[in-house]
Amino acid sequence: MTTPADPALTFAQKALDSQPFSRLLGARVTAFGDGRATLELDIREDLHQQNGYLHGGVVSYAADNALTFAAGTALGPAVLTAGFSIQYIRPATGRTLVARAEVVHAGRRQAVVRCDLLTVTEDGTETLSAVAQGTVLPARTP
Amino acid sequence: MTTPADPALTFAQKALDSQPFSRLLGARVTAFGDGRATLELDIREDLHQQNGYLHGGVVSYAADNALTFAAGTALGPAVLTAGFSIQYIRPATGRTLVARAEVVHAGRRQAVVRCDLLTVTEDGTETLSAVAQGTVLPARTP
Amino acid sequence: MTTPADPALTFAQKALDSQPFSRLLGARVTAFGDGRATLELDIREDLHQQNGYLHGGVVSYAADNALTFAAGTALGPAVLTAGFSIQYIRPATGRTLVARAEVVHAGRRQAVVRCDLLTVTEDGTETLSAVAQGTVLPARTP
Amino acid sequence: MTTPADPALTFAQKALDSQPFSRLLGARVTAFGDGRATLELDIREDLHQQNGYLHGGVVSYAADNALTFAAGTALGPAVLTAGFSIQYIRPATGRTLVARAEVVHAGRRQAVVRCDLLTVTEDGTETLSAVAQGTVLPARTP
Repeated sequence: MTTPADPALTFAQKALDSQPFSRLLGARVTAFGDGRATLELDIREDLHQQNGYLHGGVVSYAADNALTFAAGTALGPAVLTAGFSIQYIRPATGRTLVARAEVVHAGRRQAVVRCDLLTVTEDGTETLSAVAQGTVLPARTP
Repeated sequence: MTTPADPALTFAQKALDSQPFSRLLGARVTAFGDGRATLELDIREDLHQQNGYLHGGVVSYAADNALTFAAGTALGPAVLTAGFSIQYIRPATGRTLVARAEVVHAGRRQAVVRCDLLTVTEDGTETLSAVAQGTVLPARTP
Repeated sequence: MTTPADPALTFAQKALDSQPFSRLLGARVTAFGDGRATLELDIREDLHQQNGYLHGGVVSYAADNALTFAAGTALGPAVLTAGFSIQYIRPATGRTLVARAEVVHAGRRQAVVRCDLLTVTEDGTETLSAVAQGTVLPARTP
Repeated sequence: MTTPADPALTFAQKALDSQPFSRLLGARVTAFGDGRATLELDIREDLHQQNGYLHGGVVSYAADNALTFAAGTALGPAVLTAGFSIQYIRPATGRTLVARAEVVHAGRRQAVVRCDLLTVTEDGTETLSAVAQGTVLPARTP
């Protein structure tokens, strides 16, 4: 169980905070380790699309970043996301967006990662909003 | 050649401005019609990742939205993006991100759209940063 | 638990046998129902690529067909696969290829499905070879 | 212009013929070089699905293989397809399936490739049937 005092989680949150765009969106890491990473963000009004739902671009940001962080637990911090595919299931609404990513394979050449994108309401009800999968490459060290 | 006085472009920019998240990112529509849409945004510092490049999540936002707008020229304004795939080519840097989307097929059931994501420097040099393709569905009218 | 006498499985196998290409590849359905479908085929030599592994195109065939069959358990037999994404994990070798697909969401407009592609050796050891996810649409009735 | 006497094309056809599954499907290479590869196959009855159209799995095989061959023109013969995404546009029917792949970027770490899947009738009419894009990695030399 990860807690705020978990050094791996502290490290991951610091890495996330070093991304100005993640700070702009208010993203936080709530789990990090053993091939898994969870990112969350509040569904603020300035992240909406035209109908009052969370913009799909925020969901795809969360997928991209969660995939990359999960791969980082297996490949190390220097990684490069090669690409991903996302399928939207329903408009995202609620209090929080949660992106739960899990490595399904990590080798020397690539990691393959899946991610569930869920929304959570005030009372804790989770709803699946999108699914993603992608490939992350180890970045070459200088 | 589309110009600011083009009614279709004015309509599209208004649609984009109705998305709070697109306003937050400073996105603008620079072409809209005949199965094509181009979205652009300035590569501001608050949209960066940790190494001073544009965050991949901003690139995926632009892909998602450009695909949707291009499909809208063919399917009408009420559309629903089913999903997309994006492959990153190189870190995005420069002055402007440009997302050029083009419908490759539009039927009654779906539109299939491709998108090039380019960065443009001060002197106008374009560099391909990512490619995407996706499926957009017509939204049911109430 | 599905058995050879399961009417749903018999129906699904008959549907698969109505596809000449599935007969050519020797594909069989081993589970069908409740949002899930499993397809299997023997890794014959005439399905290999140049290095003695199962050809990636056979793996992608199995992904495509398993996604479609799983969606069929939720949407009915008349479905149309809009597309899918597949990430290969390792070369496929062994006795049998198994494609296990599961619907993660089925609505009126689309089903979103994930699929694991595994290889099984003579002694029953399973190895993950690829993962896929896709979108399936209900086909319009005439 | 590639011709049967083109050594690159002869090399590519030989590589394709070394794949038992490609021989089973009757695939041939009709263009190979400069970041591009074209594969073709006759739409035989044993490659059909249940409604008399070419099976989607054959289309995905052709996409996979054409992407790989196109990447091979840029990365060399030892390549490994990491994955791809395919969107189907319409049922494939006609005399011939043509898969035209083109590298959009090739670096040291990966190639990103797009592919058009077309069908051609007896009188030469081409119809777009699907589009694909994928990532190919250089294989490590032993």
